[in-house]
Amino acid sequence: MTGVRVAGVGLTQFGRQPERTGRDLFAEAALAARDESGVPSDDFEEINYGNFMGSLAERQGHQAPLMADMVGVDCPATRYEEACASAGVAVREAVRTVRSGESDVVLAGGCERMTNLSTADVTEGLATAADELYEIRAGITFPGAYALMERAYFERFGGDREDLAHIAVKNHDNALPNEYAQFHRAITVEEVLDAPMVSDPIGLLDACPVTDGASAVVLVSDEYAEEHDLDAPVSITGSGQGGDNLALQDREGLATTPATERAAAEAYADAGREPADVDVVEVHDCFTIAEALALEGLDFYDAGEGIGAARRGETTATGELPVNLSGGLKAKGHPVGATGGSQIAEMTRLLRGDHPNSEHVEDATVGLTHNAGGTVASAVVHVLEVDR
Amino acid sequence: MTGVRVAGVGLTQFGRQPERTGRDLFAEAALAARDESGVPSDDFEEINYGNFMGSLAERQGHQAPLMADMVGVDCPATRYEEACASAGVAVREAVRTVRSGESDVVLAGGCERMTNLSTADVTEGLATAADELYEIRAGITFPGAYALMERAYFERFGGDREDLAHIAVKNHDNALPNEYAQFHRAITVEEVLDAPMVSDPIGLLDACPVTDGASAVVLVSDEYAEEHDLDAPVSITGSGQGGDNLALQDREGLATTPATERAAAEAYADAGREPADVDVVEVHDCFTIAEALALEGLDFYDAGEGIGAARRGETTATGELPVNLSGGLKAKGHPVGATGGSQIAEMTRLLRGDHPNSEHVEDATVGLTHNAGGTVASAVVHVLEVDR
Repeated sequence: MTGVRVAGVGLTQFGRQPERTGRDLFAEAALAARDESGVPSDDFEEINYGNFMGSLAERQGHQAPLMADMVGVDCPATRYEEACASAGVAVREAVRTVRSGESDVVLAGGCERMTNLSTADVTEGLATAADELYEIRAGITFPGAYALMERAYFERFGGDREDLAHIAVKNHDNALPNEYAQFHRAITVEEVLDAPMVSDPIGLLDACPVTDGASAVVLVSDEYAEEHDLDAPVSITGSGQGGDNLALQDREGLATTPATERAAAEAYADAGREPADVDVVEVHDCFTIAEALALEGLDFYDAGEGIGAARRGETTATGELPVNLSGGLKAKGHPVGATGGSQIAEMTRLLRGDHPNSEHVEDATVGLTHNAGGTVASAVVHVLEVDR
Repeated sequence: MTGVRVAGVGLTQFGRQPERTGRDLFAEAALAARDESGVPSDDFEEINYGNFMGSLAERQGHQAPLMADMVGVDCPATRYEEACASAGVAVREAVRTVRSGESDVVLAGGCERMTNLSTADVTEGLATAADELYEIRAGITFPGAYALMERAYFERFGGDREDLAHIAVKNHDNALPNEYAQFHRAITVEEVLDAPMVSDPIGLLDACPVTDGASAVVLVSDEYAEEHDLDAPVSITGSGQGGDNLALQDREGLATTPATERAAAEAYADAGREPADVDVVEVHDCFTIAEALALEGLDFYDAGEGIGAARRGETTATGELPVNLSGGLKAKGHPVGATGGSQIAEMTRLLRGDHPNSEHVEDATVGLTHNAGGTVASAVVHVLEVDR
């Protein structure tokens, strides 16, 4: 079985750019990834494209062949939709396709256009990632759903809003030098605690923003990389995917995320790694509580211990396990269908040493990315390693 | 590389059932496939689920984990969207997953709920499979797009509406004994020609109906089938996927379908078969002209010759190459996201000998299915073979 290299990555600016179409955004990211990789378009054998709500936001379904058009290739292109983990599954299938020998070169990534919608419409659109019959009709939205999870966590394991505020502060700090980030503004714990309440106990600065953006990575087999003498030191060495009940009501508890646990177990086994081997992490922090849940689901912390990690300084840029050096969904932004690919792109930059935050992880060799769908009804985990 | 067996198939009734949810429909098909296969749910390792417009029709995205819920399993589940070829790509990825050794058992299929929408809304929803900027804003709908293709075909290759009427008549005849079909009504060439015009030259009886329904197939490795002594004589021996420009205006011509040609070339090579080896075919006849285009793209006929095949009796149930013995999209119905899986299910039944139309293909050993997205901007082709 061949290894899988990240030959090139591409990102658009994350942020409000309502005047740009999805196709325009994805083309920018894909062509940037292609140009960085040095792989000619004609060598692309497949495109795996993640998108969540394009049929609502742009009235555009069937986006995969459209994106192949925009990239200027005529290879098969397939859309993956797994809510906020759409690009995560697109990358995962690309990894498996390259490993199986089906294709030597796959372009994977995703895109979301969101800020062209009204706030009400984007909230309703995002809600389609939850259970329409048993959650949405009862009036729940995503801040509401995560507020339930946060309350359940506090009740079962302890911790408080101030613990979580440190996560937001950390991720805003990390985003400061990231040229692609939506926010370049340091915030304080006090500001987080004093921010307007969105859905108690989740405040405005506990939540990721609404974002337009795209991501792309060019994945190639070891053999292709060697034959073409590509400069591609980063490999994806582990991949895992997990699922859970879609509706919160059907789960055994709200303070743990079994989908993440399942995806992580598979990815660690696949890579032959364990949590202690990991040097740097990107997790799906759509809300601050989500970062705590992820760190525990990924087995970096025991249940109840993840929430205090940022406050104790363990997951800051200078901590022992830097988390979300990109700025995370919280501060880099969360163009839903692009996020899983963005995490791979950011981790690749971090491990290669050409990320503005690479200085904090100079000796890092193993990175992990975690992309979650909805209230973690689905999760995708990847392990990346650099050959220094 | 292991072979891939179809261990079981499941279908719902196709037709108007607006009171049923998508989850209800898919669960019925999936559990039927499971029961027929004899594979216990606990052995399911992945679910590949096709759906096109659930976020519009039911305000339900993130359907894959929901469908895993409904089937009662907690394995990873992924949604594939490729317009009308959504289940086709879901099956294709399942085939590749089993072949690669990643999983021994994958449930693949799809679902669409459509008749709960108004006619205007379903037409607008279907239109999202075309290019929103350059086709939809100009006012085109799918009957309009295929009408352009039909006119281009007539102009370039000849043929007439009466040729196409024979396709509709044939497919309605084929659907008569099919218990899952939406229509059980024979029609005449005169009725087709006299039907109300939808988009000249496409009349009402040239078009497939709006349909609710679901499909599922249980795919297993040869090793799994043998170890568990499954009765699974049908294998998927070839798979191919092709793409094309999304918008008609960007294509070199409208009277041929390069995406089909590409998918077919890959599937034939994959199976080690050629068109002359194929005994029975299911093609994507969303409009009668689409069947003609498909037969030519699949290389059963030279360009310009496919349109007269039904009229000449070559593709009828008693012809030398029976096409759409299920009734096809035209008469069996077209629940968009389910169709690609339905074709695999119907072909499996035909080859196993337990389809009501199996009597017409008693000696058939090689079948082919063709599923297309939009105006054939994407296409998926599978070759199935039975070990008699």
